Amino acid sequence: MEIRKSFASDNNAGVHPRILQAVQDANQGHVVGYGDDPYTRRAIARFREIFGEQVDVYFVFTGTAANVLSIKAVTRSYHAVITSELAHLHVDECGAPENFTGCKVLVVPTENGKITIEGIKRHVHGFGFEHHAQPRLVSITQATEMGTVYTPEEIREIADYVHEHGLLLHMDGARLSNAAASLGVGFREITGDAGVDILSFGGTKNGMMLGEAVVFFNPELSRDFKYIRKQAMQLGSKMRFISAQFLSFFEDDLWLHNARHANAMARLLAEKLRDVPQVRITQPVESNAVFALIPREAIPRLQEKYFFYVWNEETSEVRWMASFDTTEEDVEDFVRIIRETLNG
Amino acid sequence: MEIRKSFASDNNAGVHPRILQAVQDANQGHVVGYGDDPYTRRAIARFREIFGEQVDVYFVFTGTAANVLSIKAVTRSYHAVITSELAHLHVDECGAPENFTGCKVLVVPTENGKITIEGIKRHVHGFGFEHHAQPRLVSITQATEMGTVYTPEEIREIADYVHEHGLLLHMDGARLSNAAASLGVGFREITGDAGVDILSFGGTKNGMMLGEAVVFFNPELSRDFKYIRKQAMQLGSKMRFISAQFLSFFEDDLWLHNARHANAMARLLAEKLRDVPQVRITQPVESNAVFALIPREAIPRLQEKYFFYVWNEETSEVRWMASFDTTEEDVEDFVRIIRETLNG
Amino acid sequence: MEIRKSFASDNNAGVHPRILQAVQDANQGHVVGYGDDPYTRRAIARFREIFGEQVDVYFVFTGTAANVLSIKAVTRSYHAVITSELAHLHVDECGAPENFTGCKVLVVPTENGKITIEGIKRHVHGFGFEHHAQPRLVSITQATEMGTVYTPEEIREIADYVHEHGLLLHMDGARLSNAAASLGVGFREITGDAGVDILSFGGTKNGMMLGEAVVFFNPELSRDFKYIRKQAMQLGSKMRFISAQFLSFFEDDLWLHNARHANAMARLLAEKLRDVPQVRITQPVESNAVFALIPREAIPRLQEKYFFYVWNEETSEVRWMASFDTTEEDVEDFVRIIRETLNG
Amino acid sequence: MEIRKSFASDNNAGVHPRILQAVQDANQGHVVGYGDDPYTRRAIARFREIFGEQVDVYFVFTGTAANVLSIKAVTRSYHAVITSELAHLHVDECGAPENFTGCKVLVVPTENGKITIEGIKRHVHGFGFEHHAQPRLVSITQATEMGTVYTPEEIREIADYVHEHGLLLHMDGARLSNAAASLGVGFREITGDAGVDILSFGGTKNGMMLGEAVVFFNPELSRDFKYIRKQAMQLGSKMRFISAQFLSFFEDDLWLHNARHANAMARLLAEKLRDVPQVRITQPVESNAVFALIPREAIPRLQEKYFFYVWNEETSEVRWMASFDTTEEDVEDFVRIIRETLNG
Repeated sequence: MEIRKSFASDNNAGVHPRILQAVQDANQGHVVGYGDDPYTRRAIARFREIFGEQVDVYFVFTGTAANVLSIKAVTRSYHAVITSELAHLHVDECGAPENFTGCKVLVVPTENGKITIEGIKRHVHGFGFEHHAQPRLVSITQATEMGTVYTPEEIREIADYVHEHGLLLHMDGARLSNAAASLGVGFREITGDAGVDILSFGGTKNGMMLGEAVVFFNPELSRDFKYIRKQAMQLGSKMRFISAQFLSFFEDDLWLHNARHANAMARLLAEKLRDVPQVRITQPVESNAVFALIPREAIPRLQEKYFFYVWNEETSEVRWMASFDTTEEDVEDFVRIIRETLNG
Repeated sequence: MEIRKSFASDNNAGVHPRILQAVQDANQGHVVGYGDDPYTRRAIARFREIFGEQVDVYFVFTGTAANVLSIKAVTRSYHAVITSELAHLHVDECGAPENFTGCKVLVVPTENGKITIEGIKRHVHGFGFEHHAQPRLVSITQATEMGTVYTPEEIREIADYVHEHGLLLHMDGARLSNAAASLGVGFREITGDAGVDILSFGGTKNGMMLGEAVVFFNPELSRDFKYIRKQAMQLGSKMRFISAQFLSFFEDDLWLHNARHANAMARLLAEKLRDVPQVRITQPVESNAVFALIPREAIPRLQEKYFFYVWNEETSEVRWMASFDTTEEDVEDFVRIIRETLNG
Repeated sequence: MEIRKSFASDNNAGVHPRILQAVQDANQGHVVGYGDDPYTRRAIARFREIFGEQVDVYFVFTGTAANVLSIKAVTRSYHAVITSELAHLHVDECGAPENFTGCKVLVVPTENGKITIEGIKRHVHGFGFEHHAQPRLVSITQATEMGTVYTPEEIREIADYVHEHGLLLHMDGARLSNAAASLGVGFREITGDAGVDILSFGGTKNGMMLGEAVVFFNPELSRDFKYIRKQAMQLGSKMRFISAQFLSFFEDDLWLHNARHANAMARLLAEKLRDVPQVRITQPVESNAVFALIPREAIPRLQEKYFFYVWNEETSEVRWMASFDTTEEDVEDFVRIIRETLNG
Repeated sequence: MEIRKSFASDNNAGVHPRILQAVQDANQGHVVGYGDDPYTRRAIARFREIFGEQVDVYFVFTGTAANVLSIKAVTRSYHAVITSELAHLHVDECGAPENFTGCKVLVVPTENGKITIEGIKRHVHGFGFEHHAQPRLVSITQATEMGTVYTPEEIREIADYVHEHGLLLHMDGARLSNAAASLGVGFREITGDAGVDILSFGGTKNGMMLGEAVVFFNPELSRDFKYIRKQAMQLGSKMRFISAQFLSFFEDDLWLHNARHANAMARLLAEKLRDVPQVRITQPVESNAVFALIPREAIPRLQEKYFFYVWNEETSEVRWMASFDTTEEDVEDFVRIIRETLNG
């Protein structure tokens, strides 16, 4: 099988050329390792311009690490984390949160990836009762695993509830760029300004080679984070090559350009499929994902030509993701092949 | 302070141009994420050519991860790991081995970084006694943290002892290239063929951007390693960019060229310092490290010009590392500055 | 508040006099510590007579420990445990399973404390997919947290499903005596013979001072359990005083006498309340628990006289437990006070 | 082999009759579980009278648990604990400290079980350096594993050093009674008043059936300890039966009577052996332990008659422990048998 530009995942794409150029440009001489270098200092300064001067920022290798270390930073092993039943940290991290933090993960049902106060509330009790893992952190994903997006107001509402009950709010922002682009807002409006305490900020899925950031909006929460990152095996020695990517990511709003484009390609795909009778789009297309029900028997034939993941075997729901480098031609070709396959 | 090509650490260097080119070349189109891509398949095949067809290989981000995951693969939490008191895994990993595996780390005194059967033996008892953490794994470092190198015979002797007692032998090979170049042998002679069961194979310190490998010489030991890697937050999504580096690392023996050069520069530095009366070289220079006692008061003045680490504050012993990109001019300049500073 | 014989929990009761006598009788001279004593040998032999000669048995201090150590024995940290959303190990152990084993706990909705294959099935997938915690163990509680009881056939059905999918079946038998007494069967019929692989066997809630046992029906599963128990801080030095209790527990079917009595007292309580209009019994009374909806405002007034726990604040459902030492007079007095309070 | 009153360990003894009587007396009616009962309240009040009104006290099942939970209370996983190379928590707890806390255990060489500031100092560095597990807690054992005893001045000196460096001092007081009796001081003089921050207070080895206490001299340190105890599977449901033992333990100085007696019997044993030429006592007999070198070949023959443990196989050093119930006749009989065996 020749792999074309697939619709499997935004991490099947490569690196944006400008970001790769930045990596190359950073390859000059020696710099001190483990983040005590000018690239990292500049990248952190850039995060502070964007998210607020008070934020504390740490780079790690993967989104799983960003989530797990966010939790570890603010919990003890007897705490509980409340999140969506579809959350990456619950479903796709092989139990890393439980294993590395000891915490219990409690889940809230969801159809569209978002959780509500009503859902969270079910787990917010038992404070002071030692038999019960103590609720400590709520984690929401922006954009969600279903491609939907929380509005700033929705986030603020959850944040207020969370804080009223003495909890903290974490946001898994592996696709925060796509959400911000979709909402037409800056990063700050949907993170710190909306009440988020800790953010996993994603670079990899929006054109970087690798690199995620943990952003603390209250630096009290990150006081011992450098030890946690090291102990978690997430401290890179030649860190400049991650930092340089972030610098490029933010330069001239490359992140926004990339995310807008990916979102647009997802919308285009969804639109072009609306009149294919065997395809039913199941979620609003608010970022770069398209979820659709398609005939079960067509799936393997289609996967031979374009690789993608089946989201739900039982309902035969599939997920298609657009990337920063998806072209209109890719979308048209894919739609053509879908039509052929379904009609074949 | 302007940072020149420092002698602080081989991870202060950048990326070898050929390796960076390979990264760039791999940036073509989409490939499946998480290692199911042609670059990774080829890189694993290359490891098998080098280390033996039976080996099982997994890429991770850091040397700490390679060590910790090697331990986790073959232990339960009630096991003990025996290693040198200077071992990176004991001294420089912020307790990551204990935290991620639950195991006890037992240490053997050493002057030159190597451990002996006599030293290991002290901890090899208590089998079947449930009050005692059960010895399971011995870990040696090649080249050692003191820049010395185990001969194939020394490794074999330890391996035999270890296996006779039902234990396994791990090698931290963060600088395995330097050791192989120094001994004039291939990788296999000082790993699998000498009785090593699991190897942390280092790329970063010998010209890669990032990337280490865990190599299992007995694939029985790695049966569930893919889950461990994921749970340890060490599964890269765009893995091709690590795999491509390894392909280049091995191509036309680039690894050997790099390591030989770094070793030669360390030897040159040591030689040029032999007639500086205030400098006493404390270890045989068998890889790319030079350890030296220098006058305490000279250290900060020297660090202003060339950054490096003090190894032992009490004895005023310092460590200087050469890299793949250290030049003879760098060495000469450094020696000149050392002389000036010591005589100033 | 004077505490009478409460209906709060069967662990609010004391020790059965015959069991206390056995403790006293064991206080003769010196015996080797940590279980290498004649009392423990005899107690283990007794478990083998009852559960089958092949079983392997270990005593621990608490039911939480019995559950957590059962899981630890047969899992690695990347495994998942599937259990009821009401399971003690999920709700009442402060995250001890996650913290000590690293495993993810996945829950199945239930109304009556029992789980079905339909519910388990939802979590039985993702085998071989490294992003997903690997399902390994299903845990059911007998009698359940809601006082209901699985029939031998129901257990067998679940066991067959579990084994067909390569998983293991654990039973939390904190109240196994009550279940066996209720069903009129021996322990074996509802454990090993029905397909249970590992059992947490409860002593404390049925008249012992403290002491639970972990019973392995397949001794392959317990090969390293002695290290796990020690590392889990559950190896008692003067173990004879737990072992002696178990010997007395089984002697002349004391366990059965105690459990039957507690069950009968629960049934009596339920019967006597059937004609109190403000009380609605919500679960079948199949062991020693009675669940009831009572008017919210009556709860604190009633608790002043007889302490008990509110099961569900929202629905105003309460739980009343009978013990081995509950008398008919206690029940009558309690019913009288309920009536008075509700009518007051 | 008939087991006489052995000299193997003070935990081979049974329960002091007055303590067993207290257990029996506590077996009256129902009380609330998990420590919310009058016996536990009284026992805690008693600890406060003895150790100071500010102390916070929690009961657990074993000495291993008391040590491990003390560490967990005041550490994060990236911390290090410094202790003697002979410390129970390092040697005899199957890695429980590392596994439950994630911390690194760093050891100090010792001949007599005591550690010195000189020894501790070696590990007190690397603060703020994220590659290094951060020193947090020093743990000393009183009486030590070699039967020696720290004077109040020695403890104070260590405590001052420890506090000056921002660390905390833990004391493993599994045999604190023996130390206090030996020094002729109260508990407070060698714990809180001497600068100890957290104490593992032992009951089992001095006449209790089971039960140890964790005592926090600064209640700031124990703020979340109740969750830790529960999560560590150390919260007993029928806690009154441990609490009642502690009440009896302190009543009319029973603890002192027991400890003094055991100490006296150890001294008597040592004295009576002084003129046996083949026996060399190796440690000052300051509590209830006697360490001696005896001819290797005599050990198994002697063990047939009186069970005890070989402390050091290589040097053929053995350990004999006296208990609260050791009699002069036991000592004389044992000495007689030693003589016979050695001369046989």
